[in-house]
Amino acid sequence: MHVFSVDGVPAVLWTPAGDDRTGATPLIFIGHGGGQHKQHPAVQYRAERFVAAGFAVVSADIPNHGDRAPDERLNQLAGTVGDIARFQALAAEQTVPEWQAVIDAVHARIGAGPVGYWGVSAGCGLGVPFVAADPRVRAAVLGLGGASANAAVAARITVPVEFLIQWDDERVPREQSLALFDALGSVDKTLHANPGGHSDRLPEHELDSQVRFFTRHLIPTESR
Amino acid sequence: MHVFSVDGVPAVLWTPAGDDRTGATPLIFIGHGGGQHKQHPAVQYRAERFVAAGFAVVSADIPNHGDRAPDERLNQLAGTVGDIARFQALAAEQTVPEWQAVIDAVHARIGAGPVGYWGVSAGCGLGVPFVAADPRVRAAVLGLGGASANAAVAARITVPVEFLIQWDDERVPREQSLALFDALGSVDKTLHANPGGHSDRLPEHELDSQVRFFTRHLIPTESR
Repeated sequence: MHVFSVDGVPAVLWTPAGDDRTGATPLIFIGHGGGQHKQHPAVQYRAERFVAAGFAVVSADIPNHGDRAPDERLNQLAGTVGDIARFQALAAEQTVPEWQAVIDAVHARIGAGPVGYWGVSAGCGLGVPFVAADPRVRAAVLGLGGASANAAVAARITVPVEFLIQWDDERVPREQSLALFDALGSVDKTLHANPGGHSDRLPEHELDSQVRFFTRHLIPTESR
Repeated sequence: MHVFSVDGVPAVLWTPAGDDRTGATPLIFIGHGGGQHKQHPAVQYRAERFVAAGFAVVSADIPNHGDRAPDERLNQLAGTVGDIARFQALAAEQTVPEWQAVIDAVHARIGAGPVGYWGVSAGCGLGVPFVAADPRVRAAVLGLGGASANAAVAARITVPVEFLIQWDDERVPREQSLALFDALGSVDKTLHANPGGHSDRLPEHELDSQVRFFTRHLIPTESR
């Protein structure tokens, strides 16, 4: 595990041991959730599963989280449910270029392989504009987020998406979730919905499915 | 492949070669779609994938299909879109006991292992009452069917379900599909939605997912 920072943005990189594939290691960027940080157990857990499957994984603290200095402007929005969309829109103005710079730095270190994005909840709110903006991203797991924040931007996404809904989400209305999936411009998109609330643990088979999803789209057949 | 019949119901059984697991072979019953039959290519294709994964597979002609004699009462309903629910309700009165007898016959031949059910479209309309009625069924793939026919019966299903929706289904309204998923009584249920119309080919990764779903629920960990 390699902790670093790019222009003041704290980030962490996990790389697989003994990668003997030809070509650059595929990279998954994990966008953490609200209230979490780049090494939160929920991030670490997924990172380890992806690394075991042959991916490098990078995550970065989003504004006002983790090792970053408090941002009063964002702070005022962060706790207010009705302002989540505004918080994410404001934060995304920062995170899109920040995450692109983080990927530049990782590519300079391990080689410029294909990139995947994983992010739900705030990681979806910030992930939608990021995936739409960066053509290096070839596949994305998104979800637990609604259309109100992001429908127009989502329409610009064309890469394969695996989209998660918690069927009993008390924070994102079901119709909003379905509408965001509907808005995605991707031809290859799959919705996975499971019973449970916004913060309930996702079924383990979903992480298995995500490993296969990224493998299918980021690792050439002959290298699997 | 073994073609047989039980009380006049034509059926076909595929079994895996060289099954060296201890215990009885797990069995998947495939309910074919409307206009198809027990050896339709769509059935055969899935059967071969399941057999390769270690399952026995059985399918049976539904009333008024395949090698069965025409049934005038059903025939009058079959072609009429608005009468699909009535057709399925009437047909299910026959298919539930017929399929139970088919499973009895297969179990007598290969041993009474755990049973899974796979059926979409008409195979969902007939599958919901079957899965609800037969406690030998431990897991089911259902979908491309709506709540109007089956919501009350679906609430009695408690086994794990993987439920498929074609996002642009022109025959089953999206709200009807979502309502049938919602109605399922199962604690462990996952909705998989993909772009496409009612009769469009399902993505190949869905069949991969179904193999893993049945493996997870029908094959003991130590035998996989």
